[in-house]
Amino acid sequence: MKAIGIVVEYNPLHNGHVYHAEQSRLATGADVIIAVMSGNFLQRGEPAFVDKWTRTKMALASGVDIVFELPYRFATGNAPAFARGAIELLDAAGCSAFCFGSEDGNMEPFQNSLQLIGRHRDEYEAAVKYAIAEGLSYPMALNKAYETILAGQSAVPVADLSKPNNILGFHYMEAAQSIGSSMDAVTIKRMGAGYHDETLDSQKIASATGIRKSYFGSETLDDVVGFIPEATRNLLLEWQSERKGFGNWESFYPFLRFIILRDGPSRLRTIADVSEGIENLIFRAAQSQDSFKSFMDAVKSKRYTWTRIQRMLTHILTGFTKDMRADMDKPAYLRLLGMTNEGRSYLNVRKKNLPLPLISKVASFSDPSLDMDITASDIYALGLGKGTDESKIGLDYLQSPIMADHFGSKSFK
Amino acid sequence: MKAIGIVVEYNPLHNGHVYHAEQSRLATGADVIIAVMSGNFLQRGEPAFVDKWTRTKMALASGVDIVFELPYRFATGNAPAFARGAIELLDAAGCSAFCFGSEDGNMEPFQNSLQLIGRHRDEYEAAVKYAIAEGLSYPMALNKAYETILAGQSAVPVADLSKPNNILGFHYMEAAQSIGSSMDAVTIKRMGAGYHDETLDSQKIASATGIRKSYFGSETLDDVVGFIPEATRNLLLEWQSERKGFGNWESFYPFLRFIILRDGPSRLRTIADVSEGIENLIFRAAQSQDSFKSFMDAVKSKRYTWTRIQRMLTHILTGFTKDMRADMDKPAYLRLLGMTNEGRSYLNVRKKNLPLPLISKVASFSDPSLDMDITASDIYALGLGKGTDESKIGLDYLQSPIMADHFGSKSFK
Repeated sequence: MKAIGIVVEYNPLHNGHVYHAEQSRLATGADVIIAVMSGNFLQRGEPAFVDKWTRTKMALASGVDIVFELPYRFATGNAPAFARGAIELLDAAGCSAFCFGSEDGNMEPFQNSLQLIGRHRDEYEAAVKYAIAEGLSYPMALNKAYETILAGQSAVPVADLSKPNNILGFHYMEAAQSIGSSMDAVTIKRMGAGYHDETLDSQKIASATGIRKSYFGSETLDDVVGFIPEATRNLLLEWQSERKGFGNWESFYPFLRFIILRDGPSRLRTIADVSEGIENLIFRAAQSQDSFKSFMDAVKSKRYTWTRIQRMLTHILTGFTKDMRADMDKPAYLRLLGMTNEGRSYLNVRKKNLPLPLISKVASFSDPSLDMDITASDIYALGLGKGTDESKIGLDYLQSPIMADHFGSKSFK
Repeated sequence: MKAIGIVVEYNPLHNGHVYHAEQSRLATGADVIIAVMSGNFLQRGEPAFVDKWTRTKMALASGVDIVFELPYRFATGNAPAFARGAIELLDAAGCSAFCFGSEDGNMEPFQNSLQLIGRHRDEYEAAVKYAIAEGLSYPMALNKAYETILAGQSAVPVADLSKPNNILGFHYMEAAQSIGSSMDAVTIKRMGAGYHDETLDSQKIASATGIRKSYFGSETLDDVVGFIPEATRNLLLEWQSERKGFGNWESFYPFLRFIILRDGPSRLRTIADVSEGIENLIFRAAQSQDSFKSFMDAVKSKRYTWTRIQRMLTHILTGFTKDMRADMDKPAYLRLLGMTNEGRSYLNVRKKNLPLPLISKVASFSDPSLDMDITASDIYALGLGKGTDESKIGLDYLQSPIMADHFGSKSFK
């Protein structure tokens, strides 16, 4: 059985994601699609719109056969860390290829870019450092260094690394190269809306950002149903009836504010990504600001991207320190969140030969990174529980991997 | 001007407290009564019924001339630590005597007890250790050791250290002796209800515990108005209209639960008073219990008194570690919360010669113990703020010491 891998957040899963999974299968002739998916906190430093179990159901209903959790440490990391964690897991899971979305759907520019940077690695890294010292944010510094390298080159086509999807794709390739993976890299041209597009138009494909923004603007799903599969719609409606709301920072702000006031600058400094005196700004903002929105207005600056600040806040909320991160440098397990029958058949064949332990029950395995995933889930549940009924705490111990046939039809046409 | 000192929590201030202040003044001929008062978290390991500013107003309306804050480190400590902090501050404030309530109102048994224990110090301390090793709680071990010492003695009258007021009085005297204070010790016989009595009867004096219990049973102050001065009643009604409720653990449980789940057993172990594996029990209880009441039912055991567990939880809530406590062994300042005109006259005369700095504005002084008092206030405000309007955060920076004439008449008849 041939398996190929994709890297997803599904926040929430929409028609563009279904298209990507279908095209990945067609392009590779895969029998099984394996998704490495972020847990309850995401790469932009935000709580997920709905939890990882609900998003796993969306995935299994929409063409994915196996969902593994990308551990918190990678899921909330910067683009290179995120990509490295995901690629190591897909490689460990036995994928023969990984497929990512890009603006042009053409591998050649990516390969050229990778080779160019490979040949000028020292120059590239020096340029990144220089750009950061000049005050550029990390993503902007990467792009600036990349342009510096390109400037002296002949006119081979190169990837446009100012586009979010292209950046991730490039980092996937870099990660695969650095671990010596034998996986092929395949890219699928994106359809419709850009990664961060915030508007919904009449096309059937919108971005996840646009879908969330539409919901939070109107507090109804009415405007987004045209852009999501039926399974997603049903799962979102179910979530809405059972929880306080969809995941957003405002719901977590009382806890965030509490922990900032409790721990103060000296302990905030131990938290991952918190550096260079921003802990004092964060502390003062928590003293004076009553909402997450006004808090962010008080903290944001040219020096840090919005995403970078949100990642710091995520780590403050979950208690993720620099020391903890240093102890979790490589993915140490394959945490199974769900599978279809095809996925199960694949794992039955492969499970004896996987290079990492396959975790179906968290109680059977002890690992600091897995503990962190459980803590993140509990904190997510506390923020979105309804009234005092935070019955989802400890869910990681209780929930077995989702079986596609246990929650109804995979069909979503 | 002659000043005498009392040690109070005023949680809330009731008729018995007014009687104690009046009798202390009469017994000593004092011009000025100085109260050292706990801040927003109290000796039983509980959030105060109303905040320290409101309780300062109650004090100034009821016979007290100066209120100093007993720092968090002492206010939430065990009886010997509580007594030591309070006595050191009263001594530093220039009091010529301290007055405490006792069951009999007679100094002789206390003096005899102090001398007996002084003569058998090694034996006493060995007996305390032995009783703790046998599994007794700390207060029970002290009492057991005390009885052991008494057993071999001739029949001089000794203090009954099974009574809460007597225990505190004894520790005040021990503390005064250990710092070589020249203050006289004076005791006033208690009137009416016992320290922890939970019922209100037809007498005009009830315990603070009984008053709080009556309120939380009925959610109304109607049944307690006969037992409190008019000033207390007005201040409680004002509080009720401005805040989410009166201080109680249930209001803080979401934050407590959050921090326990976030920090886990390994970080809980660094918190003051958390020892001997109870962090695992606390962590498991937070995973499963949705209310403070059910949480306490899951944590309580014969090994620990209710009070000791609540003190651990207070320190977990406020982030007070063993290391922090070790750095705050002696009171380092006199934090002024409020004064009458008489109190101001006294301080004007004395302030140049005080052995500790007198703090009216917290921004003008930097000290770890003072920072801890501010943190405790902010966390208290977060738990009891109304909706998103936690406008009381940072109050320690904004609130000047209360002047009795600024909030109306002292009269409460």
